[in-house]
Amino acid sequence: TQSSHRLLNYSDALISIIATVMILPVAHTKVEDNESVQTLLTTKIAVYLMTFLIVTVAWAAHIRLFQVIVRIDDCLALLNLACMMLITFLPYTFSLMATFPENILGILLFCGCVMVIGVIQSIIVLYAFSHPYLLNQQIQSLESRSFYKSHILKVIMRVPLVCFFASVTSLIFFQLVHDTVFNTSVPGPVEESPEVELFYSFLPNEPLSKERVEAFSDGVYAIVATLLILDICEDNVPDPTLVKQHFGGSLVAALKAYGPEYLAYFGSFATVGLLWFAHHSLFLHVTRTTRFMGLLNTFSLAFVGGLPLAYQLTHEFPPNSRNELEAIQISCVIIFFAGIFQLAIFVVALYRQQETLHPYVRYNGQEHIFMLAKLALYPCVALVTFFLTCILSRFSASIFHLMEITVPFAFILLRLLVRLLLSILRYI
Amino acid sequence: TQSSHRLLNYSDALISIIATVMILPVAHTKVEDNESVQTLLTTKIAVYLMTFLIVTVAWAAHIRLFQVIVRIDDCLALLNLACMMLITFLPYTFSLMATFPENILGILLFCGCVMVIGVIQSIIVLYAFSHPYLLNQQIQSLESRSFYKSHILKVIMRVPLVCFFASVTSLIFFQLVHDTVFNTSVPGPVEESPEVELFYSFLPNEPLSKERVEAFSDGVYAIVATLLILDICEDNVPDPTLVKQHFGGSLVAALKAYGPEYLAYFGSFATVGLLWFAHHSLFLHVTRTTRFMGLLNTFSLAFVGGLPLAYQLTHEFPPNSRNELEAIQISCVIIFFAGIFQLAIFVVALYRQQETLHPYVRYNGQEHIFMLAKLALYPCVALVTFFLTCILSRFSASIFHLMEITVPFAFILLRLLVRLLLSILRYI
Ligand SMILES: [K+]
Ligand SMILES: [K+]
Ligand SMILES: [K+]
Ligand SMILES: [K+]
Ligand SMILES: [K+]
Ligand SMILES: [K+]
Ligand SMILES: [K+]
Repeated sequence: TQSSHRLLNYSDALISIIATVMILPVAHTKVEDNESVQTLLTTKIAVYLMTFLIVTVAWAAHIRLFQVIVRIDDCLALLNLACMMLITFLPYTFSLMATFPENILGILLFCGCVMVIGVIQSIIVLYAFSHPYLLNQQIQSLESRSFYKSHILKVIMRVPLVCFFASVTSLIFFQLVHDTVFNTSVPGPVEESPEVELFYSFLPNEPLSKERVEAFSDGVYAIVATLLILDICEDNVPDPTLVKQHFGGSLVAALKAYGPEYLAYFGSFATVGLLWFAHHSLFLHVTRTTRFMGLLNTFSLAFVGGLPLAYQLTHEFPPNSRNELEAIQISCVIIFFAGIFQLAIFVVALYRQQETLHPYVRYNGQEHIFMLAKLALYPCVALVTFFLTCILSRFSASIFHLMEITVPFAFILLRLLVRLLLSILRYI
Repeated sequence: TQSSHRLLNYSDALISIIATVMILPVAHTKVEDNESVQTLLTTKIAVYLMTFLIVTVAWAAHIRLFQVIVRIDDCLALLNLACMMLITFLPYTFSLMATFPENILGILLFCGCVMVIGVIQSIIVLYAFSHPYLLNQQIQSLESRSFYKSHILKVIMRVPLVCFFASVTSLIFFQLVHDTVFNTSVPGPVEESPEVELFYSFLPNEPLSKERVEAFSDGVYAIVATLLILDICEDNVPDPTLVKQHFGGSLVAALKAYGPEYLAYFGSFATVGLLWFAHHSLFLHVTRTTRFMGLLNTFSLAFVGGLPLAYQLTHEFPPNSRNELEAIQISCVIIFFAGIFQLAIFVVALYRQQETLHPYVRYNGQEHIFMLAKLALYPCVALVTFFLTCILSRFSASIFHLMEITVPFAFILLRLLVRLLLSILRYI
């Protein structure tokens, strides 16, 4: 048997790529100058957010499964790979379902995907329970192990069974399907087994593996940070013949045409990198991650995924146009929400600070104010920038780019700034 | 101060994305039926291999740096982010340099990028040495610490200085540049400090952080495995109006047109996933990774990056055409080399098995044969398939797809197959 560390790391890498896959169609949408930004992208953004959520749900299910199964062998590793491949089909089948809502095939493919994932995970559970040395120590020593096994199987097969009935019913009554699928309530509380810290309890305070939250988040931050350089590497290497024709052989002139792309990437990488930095600072002091904290993290990451497009748009439009102002304001809103959900994780952790936080950042800890400052910096700056651009819309571009440039320095000098602020507050 | 674990994980995620970024232009090349596969893609493949190598060199430098610096603080984290952004520019500037070899701008941009990376890493070193609690325990206790510091700075600035002189000289004599850049020999052995296990010794047996090799490899395997589903998600969701026009509203018919893409993805994910599985099995039993093993790993990963395109091509051409045969043979060659370099890592580790391998897989260990079998499976199968397709070229597609389907089962049943084989051999 083997430690599951590497398998989980690979799974998190895969899942983070799949969670963010639907940003690409969004980022690659050509936006004309005379079209409103919102209308063109709304469907694609909705698909992105939905697939991000769906993949995150699959990821959370994966975490729960591998908190029960703590050692793996070759067979489990291969079963997991099969499970991963099915997970990679989720965004595509969902996208088909969303693009062809009146066609049964989309629903069947998506539900079929979910069902096969459920079947594979059930096989994994059955295999693991028939080789109990693979399981969590607590569960191994359980007397009612088979009871726990059926409990887990029930939980795993819940969503796939809903999908199964949805598919079957859709073959008969299409309208009924829509109602069934979209009105299925969140599973209620489950019979509790007091001996075991239930990993399948669905309580908000259920522990979530901190290592996996970090690995998944790192994956998403890395992918989003580099999204635009991927496009630059692929599309913005000028064709030599075109350079000769249009720019008289001057490479500098040809590259100048890509100025907006470079600036968008620079801003995008800097912002995402600093948001990662805030996330990293927070999780250094988090000792335990609960499911609610994981949920807030998911929301934060979903907004982070919107940043590349937002930055692209801020550089795409003519100066002082309405679209440019909208793009800047959208960027501010996205940055605000990405940061505010990170701050929310900290606030939620403070409520149970004995369990979830390191003493330094608890309510009276020496690093408490500093951590608050780090997490509040981006939301505050985004809020201020948003209102400034509302008032002084003519200088919105300058204000926004000024913010981009000063925030990194604010992070570097954060300690000084916080002490300054505290001194001022004490003086007043 | 903080553990560097999360920072290094994020850096490995970023670097693995950047190392593989130039696969995208290769995979997205439209190949006409009447053009030979090789000629069209050669330059792009060369650019991919070169950028993969360059980014891997930067990654190795990063590893060495953070084997010396074992704890980080906020300032180092931010400096590292800046270093990362510069690393993300390497493929693009190299691509410009390769596409416009007669233009000085390409060389200047690439060399400038390398120089700034060197400067940032030097700042990191200077910062770390002025806060010695951040350093490796061994180095902290060194008496000649400032000597070691200048040693490290010399190593870090070596390549950037070469680039500096290359840029300066290129502004004068262009031909001289080509010779200087391409003939710079690998740095020779360095004065050894017997007290410290030199992380900057450049000896082939220099230890390489196993955790980082795994993290980087996981990143590459994950990206390559999902490369084609990214394209499917972005390009293969049919437009509803087109479906009505061309397929009379039948979604099934529209999706059938994408059959080749789906098959290519399935084969690509399965093969890359199983190669990851072999890699994972190997590294479970590796206790120490040397630089030479890391180099072999890099070669294996570089070939893995070619698999998506290879699989795409096998499904793109008309049945029994010359191009299809070539595509299948190229796929076999790529799989062979990806697997043989993994096997080479194991063989090289066997030479120093006391230090590098777990007892189970050493020469007389109980898992030895089994590990050999796992690592030799893909190379052998690829070799056999290659020769079979040479002989029976009419059935090449069937043979290749048969191989794709049977190898996963071979992995699952590997123990049985190995025992069967050994029994047969003993009988003879
Ligand atoms: K990744
Ligand atoms: K765009
Ligand atoms: K990672
Ligand atoms: K990506
Ligand atoms: K192609
Ligand atoms: K990883
Ligand atoms: K990618």
